[in-house]
Amino acid sequence: MAKEKRVEQITDMEVDFAQWFTDVCTKAELVDYSGVKGCFILRPYGYAIWENIQKELDGMFKRDGHCNVSMPMLIPESLLQKEKDHVEGFAPECAWVTMGGSEELPERLCVRPTSETLFCDHWSRVVHSWRDLPMLYNQWCSVMRWEKTTRPFLRGREFLWQEGHTLHATEEEAREETLRQLEVYADLCENYLAMPVIRGNKTDKEKFAGAVNTYTIECMMHDKKALQSGTSHFFGDGFARQFGITFTDKDNQQKFPMQTSWGMSTRIIGGLIMTHGDNSGLVLPPRIAPIQIVVVPVAQHKEGVKEKATEMYDAIKAAGFRATIDLSDNSLGWKCAQYEMKGVPLRVELGPKDIEKGVCVCVRRDNGEKISVALDELVEKLPQLLDDVQQGLFDKAKRNLDEHCYAAYSLEEANELQKANGGFIKTMWCGDLQCELDMKEKAGMSSRCIPFEQEHLADTCACCGKPAKHMIYWGVAY
Amino acid sequence: MAKEKRVEQITDMEVDFAQWFTDVCTKAELVDYSGVKGCFILRPYGYAIWENIQKELDGMFKRDGHCNVSMPMLIPESLLQKEKDHVEGFAPECAWVTMGGSEELPERLCVRPTSETLFCDHWSRVVHSWRDLPMLYNQWCSVMRWEKTTRPFLRGREFLWQEGHTLHATEEEAREETLRQLEVYADLCENYLAMPVIRGNKTDKEKFAGAVNTYTIECMMHDKKALQSGTSHFFGDGFARQFGITFTDKDNQQKFPMQTSWGMSTRIIGGLIMTHGDNSGLVLPPRIAPIQIVVVPVAQHKEGVKEKATEMYDAIKAAGFRATIDLSDNSLGWKCAQYEMKGVPLRVELGPKDIEKGVCVCVRRDNGEKISVALDELVEKLPQLLDDVQQGLFDKAKRNLDEHCYAAYSLEEANELQKANGGFIKTMWCGDLQCELDMKEKAGMSSRCIPFEQEHLADTCACCGKPAKHMIYWGVAY
Repeated sequence: MAKEKRVEQITDMEVDFAQWFTDVCTKAELVDYSGVKGCFILRPYGYAIWENIQKELDGMFKRDGHCNVSMPMLIPESLLQKEKDHVEGFAPECAWVTMGGSEELPERLCVRPTSETLFCDHWSRVVHSWRDLPMLYNQWCSVMRWEKTTRPFLRGREFLWQEGHTLHATEEEAREETLRQLEVYADLCENYLAMPVIRGNKTDKEKFAGAVNTYTIECMMHDKKALQSGTSHFFGDGFARQFGITFTDKDNQQKFPMQTSWGMSTRIIGGLIMTHGDNSGLVLPPRIAPIQIVVVPVAQHKEGVKEKATEMYDAIKAAGFRATIDLSDNSLGWKCAQYEMKGVPLRVELGPKDIEKGVCVCVRRDNGEKISVALDELVEKLPQLLDDVQQGLFDKAKRNLDEHCYAAYSLEEANELQKANGGFIKTMWCGDLQCELDMKEKAGMSSRCIPFEQEHLADTCACCGKPAKHMIYWGVAY
Repeated sequence: MAKEKRVEQITDMEVDFAQWFTDVCTKAELVDYSGVKGCFILRPYGYAIWENIQKELDGMFKRDGHCNVSMPMLIPESLLQKEKDHVEGFAPECAWVTMGGSEELPERLCVRPTSETLFCDHWSRVVHSWRDLPMLYNQWCSVMRWEKTTRPFLRGREFLWQEGHTLHATEEEAREETLRQLEVYADLCENYLAMPVIRGNKTDKEKFAGAVNTYTIECMMHDKKALQSGTSHFFGDGFARQFGITFTDKDNQQKFPMQTSWGMSTRIIGGLIMTHGDNSGLVLPPRIAPIQIVVVPVAQHKEGVKEKATEMYDAIKAAGFRATIDLSDNSLGWKCAQYEMKGVPLRVELGPKDIEKGVCVCVRRDNGEKISVALDELVEKLPQLLDDVQQGLFDKAKRNLDEHCYAAYSLEEANELQKANGGFIKTMWCGDLQCELDMKEKAGMSSRCIPFEQEHLADTCACCGKPAKHMIYWGVAY
């Protein structure tokens, strides 16, 4: 007899989006809270999503010639202080190691919030000649930032990420690298995570501490708020000068190399949840889903059902799909709800009547569509079915983004549009910090980016009326 | 004209093995020292070895049903103190975070030296029923132990490792898991790293803090000293009781689950260096080498040499080998020395005369043997050539191990044998701590393990003359 297990309820996303998000994180078994505030446990299902993201990104990094390395997790305070803007940006939120065993340390050490200083310190010892360049490094690790308010994936005191750090002989090459890596992030977001992005420049106010330029990809969540999803920074030779990194160029001159860094974190999983999720739970794009297909037998106590379901499952696995089968004694309803909660893109149902007819029912997680497929055609049809889910998710997210970008011509209009609709508000901007501060104060929006794809909406800044320099996106951000 | 670059010299391993080791670590570009003592930088070549080890181990773990997770890096002091033996073992060498931003923390947090306490804390919240078991978890991360003396790979304050943590319904299942994972480590060592192992039990004195049993694989280095290369622990339900982890079993009884943990670290790379290395530098087994084959053109300024070498390189890459080609303007001598230093298993040399004859010369790194191979047969012969190097390395290491295990029948004899030959000394042992302490004091040896493969050397303990319980291996260990 089927064991009746209650399906766990989650908060309605239209009622309380923040609570819905937390519910999905815990009920889909992505995270658990630890004893240290803001330090989350990634459970197997949550970590498997990160592993799939890692695999894709790592492949792209290596394709472009990057090597992985491992830097220490501790930075001496004196090293962190070498670059002025950088330390100002990060020191206030560092966690400090002050004791080793029972002894107080002569100098306190911060748990890395980011590793520019460590890479620069290393490079100052090993870079000598143009032959040593470029240095194309990446590191997979966790970093620590002592935030006041924390949320799973979105804001942790500790979070997992990758940080790429590169060093180049020329500014041109370094700038190319910065943009190439932004494009890698955009590729991952759009083509694997089904998250459409807006690419652009951060304003000076929103730049990474110590950077000359910060490029960003911005995504729109289901609740119309913005998520900065990946950033790539051009540093010029600022760090190199502070850390004394020089090289002898082909012309025999001593020069400072040009530097970049770029990072993407487990925050993107928060974005994935908030882009595609619904009131039944998580919805995962097939290209990144730990389980792409779940086979669920219907009326499995009937003769031959488990056997046929297992046969189909074996064929699906053998074809290379990430699949599972649920032969447990839980009820059908519980099983369906469970795999919906976990966002499995495709559920293959198979009961006695289906078997008689030689078919099964494929249920799409993204739109609930049920598709009857002949059993002997299932394996060959799965790639198309999964592609349809992937494309369906991207299209839906793209519509959400496109339909919630509004042009405004004054600060007041921007404020009204944001209050009425949420989303991204695009305006012309003079480039002055004061207008950015005004927009924050009066309309509650931060600048998201100066998009690469510019439109000429007007001649003057929407905030102050001075001549406009750029079109800029504003939004309420995570 | 070829640029003359000096080949870097390393210390003779027979003169100063410790300095030779450090020289190899730096000259082969495996590590760099950071500003924090005992926290080493793994450079691309060093990290690539770890990535290859990770790939093999991770595949084995997943094959056996383990999932990766991510636990926080910080442990509240109160959590660390829950298991008495455990905290006694680790607290003296913890690094402590006491400040977050500018504020002193209400409770200090240690940077994980190992994560049993974190896993147990999590499990106490998520394990309820026999249906939740087994929990088969693994984590790839770095841990921190505030050691006094440090050396690259062998003893770091921070080091990379994996830690497997599992929870089972029965002792039998947990004990099977403990031994299965020890066998995974033995498989990796013997079949990938070409390092023969001795499997056995640790004595109570040498057990992991909090464990009921610790199993180990012990390897012998070139200098005849021992390296503990991987350990697997059975905990019984000791932690479960302290952390309140219970489950309802099939018989509806509340029970404490049985626990294991097992770990292998970047220390094994130190072992790899000290097992196979020679006075020309590193020697890497093909199955784990980041570069398996290097193509080096001879007299590359002569017409057609670079082209032919590139053609062969392309064919080698296309066949799936990890390969590189050196077309730089460095001298042939420098190139050969460089790839020998880096331990590349096979060097393919190709000059004008070879091309005329339709051959190339394959040089084995393990024994220097030069093998002439027809160019049109090269790709098909490479697997056998690499297997020969792999086997050659294992055989040599196995001879070193077999030839330096000595039986002794008294403490004095054990001491003399160790002083004369180094290596592992096997004796009978009564099982008493005092004899273990005597052996350490009088012969400078610690117990390595009570091997699974027992021999009956005598009836009485070599130290005290009381009835013997086991045969045991003694040695001087890293």
